Amino acid sequence: MRIDILSIFPEMFIPLNQSIVGKAQEKNIVDFHTHDFRENAANKQRHVDDMPYGGGQGMLLMPQPIFDTIEQIPVSQEKVPRVILMDPAGKRFNQKMAEELAQEEQLIFICGHYEGYDERIKTLVTDEVSLGDFVLTGGEVAATVMIDAIVRLIPGVLGKQASHEDDSFSSGLLEYPQYTRPEEFRGMKVPSVLMSGHHENIRKWRLTESLKKTLERRPDLLEHYEANEEETKILKSLRENGKDVVK
Amino acid sequence: MRIDILSIFPEMFIPLNQSIVGKAQEKNIVDFHTHDFRENAANKQRHVDDMPYGGGQGMLLMPQPIFDTIEQIPVSQEKVPRVILMDPAGKRFNQKMAEELAQEEQLIFICGHYEGYDERIKTLVTDEVSLGDFVLTGGEVAATVMIDAIVRLIPGVLGKQASHEDDSFSSGLLEYPQYTRPEEFRGMKVPSVLMSGHHENIRKWRLTESLKKTLERRPDLLEHYEANEEETKILKSLRENGKDVVK
Repeated sequence: MRIDILSIFPEMFIPLNQSIVGKAQEKNIVDFHTHDFRENAANKQRHVDDMPYGGGQGMLLMPQPIFDTIEQIPVSQEKVPRVILMDPAGKRFNQKMAEELAQEEQLIFICGHYEGYDERIKTLVTDEVSLGDFVLTGGEVAATVMIDAIVRLIPGVLGKQASHEDDSFSSGLLEYPQYTRPEEFRGMKVPSVLMSGHHENIRKWRLTESLKKTLERRPDLLEHYEANEEETKILKSLRENGKDVVK
Repeated sequence: MRIDILSIFPEMFIPLNQSIVGKAQEKNIVDFHTHDFRENAANKQRHVDDMPYGGGQGMLLMPQPIFDTIEQIPVSQEKVPRVILMDPAGKRFNQKMAEELAQEEQLIFICGHYEGYDERIKTLVTDEVSLGDFVLTGGEVAATVMIDAIVRLIPGVLGKQASHEDDSFSSGLLEYPQYTRPEEFRGMKVPSVLMSGHHENIRKWRLTESLKKTLERRPDLLEHYEANEEETKILKSLRENGKDVVK
């Protein structure tokens, strides 16, 4: 996958050289190109923003540097790349969107900074995306999060092909509690079922804990969840008896 | 504000030295301390993770390096700092939470990486927070987003005290479209009302566009919005007449 990023702060993408996404670059699975669109500003002072028409505080990105930069990016003749703009009014990013975007051959991210964009920039955009109901100093850190979530889903990026199939949200449920060594830490013990070696009991405990956590914290996820017979039964007794039943 | 970050990838926080958050550091409004908890791993190999009890894929963060690192962080005697863990099952981060956390004197972020945490780590945590329904390679990029949203709200960080009062979500509505120079770009013109100099018409156009965008894209925001008389009237006509009325 080729990822092009338009930003006047290219150094903010250094995290993409680290850890799993960094390794995906080394393996040539993903290829990043950052474009400082200030270099394409047509005015002498290299300004990329200006005051809003009609008055108001803050500065807006002008269309010209963005249009000229996008046009310089090499794109496949066969498939028009998705052009993503991070915007609080956009479609909410989620795991399903990450899975869909992980199929693409090329993605272009436009990162604004400070106040906002000239509305005409949106004519270049295929996807306005929001990370959530909060406001950031710029799109860079939001784009980094999206890219991280997308790249890890590309085949070959995670060590084992299977290792994102256990993710929260992939199953539709939140994850059960997990424990590692030591068996006792500062008086806190690992639940005995996990030490039992009894695979069926462990499986059932984990499923029950997953359902319990999802029911308590994110009942909305269960509205769209297709529970099988066993899960339906566990959910029924959790709903009837409250938390105690699974202790 | 003092912000402590526990992570085995301290380089991933380089974006916090840039732009507005970087300037907040220079002005001593915020003070970052990253702690590579691998340095506190008690085992000879400096391992911070181990296999899950009960079987399963992936590795989990062990409690010991995290507990020992947290205990080394200097904290105020008067006010216990909030300890934040990024977790997909946590409470959804939003602007209200950012505003609340911006009031704190100290925040501690625990960033896991790869698969997950030993459940006992959560006994240290005051807030489990999720950025949204997607999975990341680690908590670092999510913590960076939270810190960016929080720090910009601390008084003195943005140029003018007032400049985040116009944000999306602060008003409860999405932002109206904005335009800057040039007046015409590649055949696309700035709406004439914005060039009119008629302040009352501009105010009304912007309010209508904000309400229209919010109604179309995020009707959920309007459920909790306390509309005044003018807004109620505009919303009524938008709902009755569809999009055409505000053209």
